[in-house]
Amino acid sequence: MNIIDKLNWRYATKKFNPEKTLTSKQVNTLKQAFNLTATSYGLQPTKLLIIQNKALKTALVPHSYNQTQVQDASHLLVICIKEHVLKEDVNAFFNNIKTIRNTPEEILAPYRENLTSMLQNMTLEQQQQWSKNQAYIALGNLMTVCAVEGIDACPMEGFNPTAYNQALNLKEKGLKSVLLLPVGHRADDDMFANFEKVRMTLNETIIEL
Amino acid sequence: MNIIDKLNWRYATKKFNPEKTLTSKQVNTLKQAFNLTATSYGLQPTKLLIIQNKALKTALVPHSYNQTQVQDASHLLVICIKEHVLKEDVNAFFNNIKTIRNTPEEILAPYRENLTSMLQNMTLEQQQQWSKNQAYIALGNLMTVCAVEGIDACPMEGFNPTAYNQALNLKEKGLKSVLLLPVGHRADDDMFANFEKVRMTLNETIIEL
Repeated sequence: MNIIDKLNWRYATKKFNPEKTLTSKQVNTLKQAFNLTATSYGLQPTKLLIIQNKALKTALVPHSYNQTQVQDASHLLVICIKEHVLKEDVNAFFNNIKTIRNTPEEILAPYRENLTSMLQNMTLEQQQQWSKNQAYIALGNLMTVCAVEGIDACPMEGFNPTAYNQALNLKEKGLKSVLLLPVGHRADDDMFANFEKVRMTLNETIIEL
Repeated sequence: MNIIDKLNWRYATKKFNPEKTLTSKQVNTLKQAFNLTATSYGLQPTKLLIIQNKALKTALVPHSYNQTQVQDASHLLVICIKEHVLKEDVNAFFNNIKTIRNTPEEILAPYRENLTSMLQNMTLEQQQQWSKNQAYIALGNLMTVCAVEGIDACPMEGFNPTAYNQALNLKEKGLKSVLLLPVGHRADDDMFANFEKVRMTLNETIIEL
């Protein structure tokens, strides 16, 4: 299958087979893919929660408008942002560059200062929106990686983030939940699997100049 | 190469080889991949501009903080949102479902009404933010598709959207520019190509429950 066949194979899986779990190799691929997602300046203001615990997944169903994908999927991915991106985060990032690339401080210093002042000039709301944008990039990346790897997934914006934050103790981790991606394998009788994909034509969505 | 090798091969290309253009097959893959991006409710509030015209790309450099990727890349992709998502767009979407899937109106009617009222209850700013989120999903998808296909790319949030909107007559098309993705092939001497990738460890970015 080429990449377009794979993207056509992908659909928002409404019914997962709860008996078919992902292999640890597949879960490891998703972890690495998440961590390799491009983020603004490379700052990685996002975290990925991977929930396999059945009782916990079940407890989250009522906070997900009773959508049972959350419970039946092999693993529930919750893409989170850091509540605050601090000067310490910027410093840790640049120290990481120093360690990994051996870049001298005199080259990094102006970037370090620019990025610190950029973040300090943002309101908390602007900063969280900026972080949320990165969560959406991660979602786009993960969905495509799932398609390539033959993993079913269901992107979900519709859930109660406040209830998730409480149920998962995210406040004390300094995190906020943004997006869900249950992953696993489609049930044999998920009727949505056979629906024709609905898309505009390329003439409607692409403009060439 | 497996998918993780491909994601490691990818980097934000700072210098493109202006002589190496993408094939029409590659450009077609990017078009289809963009159109297959998952969007909220399937509404597709995004459009993709593909700019190959050299003079136009050059004219956009000053509106891109003088980053020459915009000019030297084979094609400049500009991910746009629709300025307004209207009742007509919702109706066109559901009519498309009817045509493609033959779904009866009595099944679609409640979804049509819900979606129309959801959009009408949003402020313009909320609606545009919702559309921008979808632009970021498309960016995540396209970057990964590029990596899979061996196409170099450079995701860019840093440009002057107002100047782009004017230069590309987007207002009259009802569009707003959100994100750039120059695509093509890296120059042989792009020193960034050989830099070690800087990422946090999986222990820092992943939490398993």
